[in-house]
Amino acid sequence: MPESASVSKTQPINLAQKAALIEQQWSPRVVAEMNDYQFKVVRIEGEFIWHAHPETDEAFLVLEGTLRIDLPGRSVHVGAGELYVVPRGIEHRTAAQGEAKLMMIEPRGILNTGHEGGARTADSDVWI
Amino acid sequence: MPESASVSKTQPINLAQKAALIEQQWSPRVVAEMNDYQFKVVRIEGEFIWHAHPETDEAFLVLEGTLRIDLPGRSVHVGAGELYVVPRGIEHRTAAQGEAKLMMIEPRGILNTGHEGGARTADSDVWI
Repeated sequence: MPESASVSKTQPINLAQKAALIEQQWSPRVVAEMNDYQFKVVRIEGEFIWHAHPETDEAFLVLEGTLRIDLPGRSVHVGAGELYVVPRGIEHRTAAQGEAKLMMIEPRGILNTGHEGGARTADSDVWI
Repeated sequence: MPESASVSKTQPINLAQKAALIEQQWSPRVVAEMNDYQFKVVRIEGEFIWHAHPETDEAFLVLEGTLRIDLPGRSVHVGAGELYVVPRGIEHRTAAQGEAKLMMIEPRGILNTGHEGGARTADSDVWI
């Protein structure tokens, strides 16, 4: 039974510890998968670029610090232990004054810059 | 732009606060959706029943306390700030000695008892 063999190796994932292992800010790292979705942790500071994901919602859970999400016409501030889901197609920009550690949940293969591309596009499938 | 109108109403969700609002243990409450997935919070204490979800993985994030997940041949203990994904089809039983508060992530419509049914089956789509 391959599933049993596989599950027997899996240990709980401490999200803050995983985030602390990441060397560079703005470099999401995959920590787990659920069906065709991935859980990624990331450390951020400063402002990202405006972008959207026309094909999917995107969930953010804050582990440490405060995440600001700029949205059309307003911003939301997401604190530690709080969840925010950006609906598909909505332009948004993540930001943090001081460092914030986050978990993101999105389908496998989604790029951090959506369809904007450019220098801040990170590899979408690096595990930690 | 209806999406803008919709997003402008959405506020960050404090998961521990939502969990504290739930009156009964073992009664998952939906707090947010991402595509066809739901984020649910639940308070648990004691042992659930053994069951499986043949059609989907199921993710657990512990908010407070310690979650024990019994799996074939072993148990894992998931602490606050830790994530565990039970693969599809794997028999499992959640449990907690003292109360634990959790967030679960799974596709909309998944029942807490899988295909076992019975008295502990909760309505799968009640929001809080």
